[in-house]
Amino acid sequence: MERISNIQEMQKRATELRLQGKKIGFVPTMGYLHEGHLSLVDAVRKSCDVLVMSIFVNPTQFGPNEDLDTYPRDIERDEALAKERGVDIVFYPHAEDMFPDGSLTWVNVEKITEVLCGASRAGHFRGVTTVLTKLINILKPHEMVMGQKDAQQAAVVTKMVEDLNMDLDVIVAPIVREDDGLAMSSRNTRLSPENRKQALVLSRSLKDLKKELNEGLDLKSALENARQKIELTANAQLEYLEARRYPSLELTDRLTDRTLIAVAVKFAGVRLIDNILVKHEK
Amino acid sequence: MERISNIQEMQKRATELRLQGKKIGFVPTMGYLHEGHLSLVDAVRKSCDVLVMSIFVNPTQFGPNEDLDTYPRDIERDEALAKERGVDIVFYPHAEDMFPDGSLTWVNVEKITEVLCGASRAGHFRGVTTVLTKLINILKPHEMVMGQKDAQQAAVVTKMVEDLNMDLDVIVAPIVREDDGLAMSSRNTRLSPENRKQALVLSRSLKDLKKELNEGLDLKSALENARQKIELTANAQLEYLEARRYPSLELTDRLTDRTLIAVAVKFAGVRLIDNILVKHEK
Repeated sequence: MERISNIQEMQKRATELRLQGKKIGFVPTMGYLHEGHLSLVDAVRKSCDVLVMSIFVNPTQFGPNEDLDTYPRDIERDEALAKERGVDIVFYPHAEDMFPDGSLTWVNVEKITEVLCGASRAGHFRGVTTVLTKLINILKPHEMVMGQKDAQQAAVVTKMVEDLNMDLDVIVAPIVREDDGLAMSSRNTRLSPENRKQALVLSRSLKDLKKELNEGLDLKSALENARQKIELTANAQLEYLEARRYPSLELTDRLTDRTLIAVAVKFAGVRLIDNILVKHEK
Repeated sequence: MERISNIQEMQKRATELRLQGKKIGFVPTMGYLHEGHLSLVDAVRKSCDVLVMSIFVNPTQFGPNEDLDTYPRDIERDEALAKERGVDIVFYPHAEDMFPDGSLTWVNVEKITEVLCGASRAGHFRGVTTVLTKLINILKPHEMVMGQKDAQQAAVVTKMVEDLNMDLDVIVAPIVREDDGLAMSSRNTRLSPENRKQALVLSRSLKDLKKELNEGLDLKSALENARQKIELTANAQLEYLEARRYPSLELTDRLTDRTLIAVAVKFAGVRLIDNILVKHEK
């Protein structure tokens, strides 16, 4: 496995691979890898010749009161896991090279970044879309894979790629969960044992909600039931629980083609998200 | 000469050329070509194998009260001129394909877009940087050439390319002038015969200013002399006349390494710009 941290070297390598006719698959991560990230590698393995994983804790997507400093990092463990999973190149640039003093350029997707996580995290998605534009220009991928866990991020990035005519396919891979249902996240390690148990309310309330919808309950009532379950859980601070059309992210009070039910809950300062995508046959 | 208007077809063609190892040179234009545009073709001819010119009157860089509707267009004449000058591919996409309903993504360069032309043309540079990002993603050029006539645009686009790690070189080609000194512009055709003569004050006052600087006059006095010449010209509405460091575009009251002296003047609603770049040996 190659390890590259120099931007120019990586870009040159990508150009070389393209000239050799290789198909490049790109897995963007902030490191501290878990099975969720590694499943993304699997999602582009068959369709691509060279699998590139970026590991970069992007400062521009953290707000001033967010957890940039405490975000978990372990590059050696990450490299071992990436290698084991068949990654060909790990790219881990330095923050001061990616965003040197005097950077002035931002890529911004409007509207769909202002709801859900974007409502409470001003500038977050602008940081995500800007860093991904940079990474795409450096890595020149044919395919990029995003996790469904960050459903809004997947919708925003897919929209950016389409709007800016970036020549790559965005693949969205399903959420990977712990045995008990908790969606995998690097932030899970920061939950206290008590909060870790309480955090199951996210996946459980969504699972129940889906079941209720299947049984014919209306969306509004099913959402209300899920909301109550979360609000009754000790230490759970509900940030949002919403149903939105996917991928336009417009609020909806009835099931559409694809409806995203997304939830964000804080436990003692650790912010967790989860979601389900409900498909509706007409 | 190839003529392509379909975005996907152009992108596929560019990918093909890249795979063949061809070097692509890109000349972005809004059409209604004059010698200024055609000189840009010359600027990338030697270093590139395939010369692509885009012709696209970009609606997103015109303000609501600007001259989008009256901006001159003549695609047949443009094609003939491009072919004669050795352009290999003319790309002229449709506005509704470039900016379909529901586009939400913008590329924005901060600060240096808020001065000079940007001060009076809100959103103009955002339109320029967004369309150029799209065109770069479609055409995949190795080199892109901008005219020094739009000095601020050249600085903004160079900054964007650097900040977003776009893998191409931006070349800035010198201003081409009519025999009497007027900087070439598609807008010149919209000047009345009287205004056409009066418009010479832009190039003449800049030329005098440069001479005065060479003779040792201080920057402030030289600027003041130029300002008076413009303000005394009938029908000339001075918008700005400023000295700024290049390419940071910070205001300066003394000559720096490279100092941009830029001017914008309106004649009966037709807005003309011109500039000189003064190099200063320390």
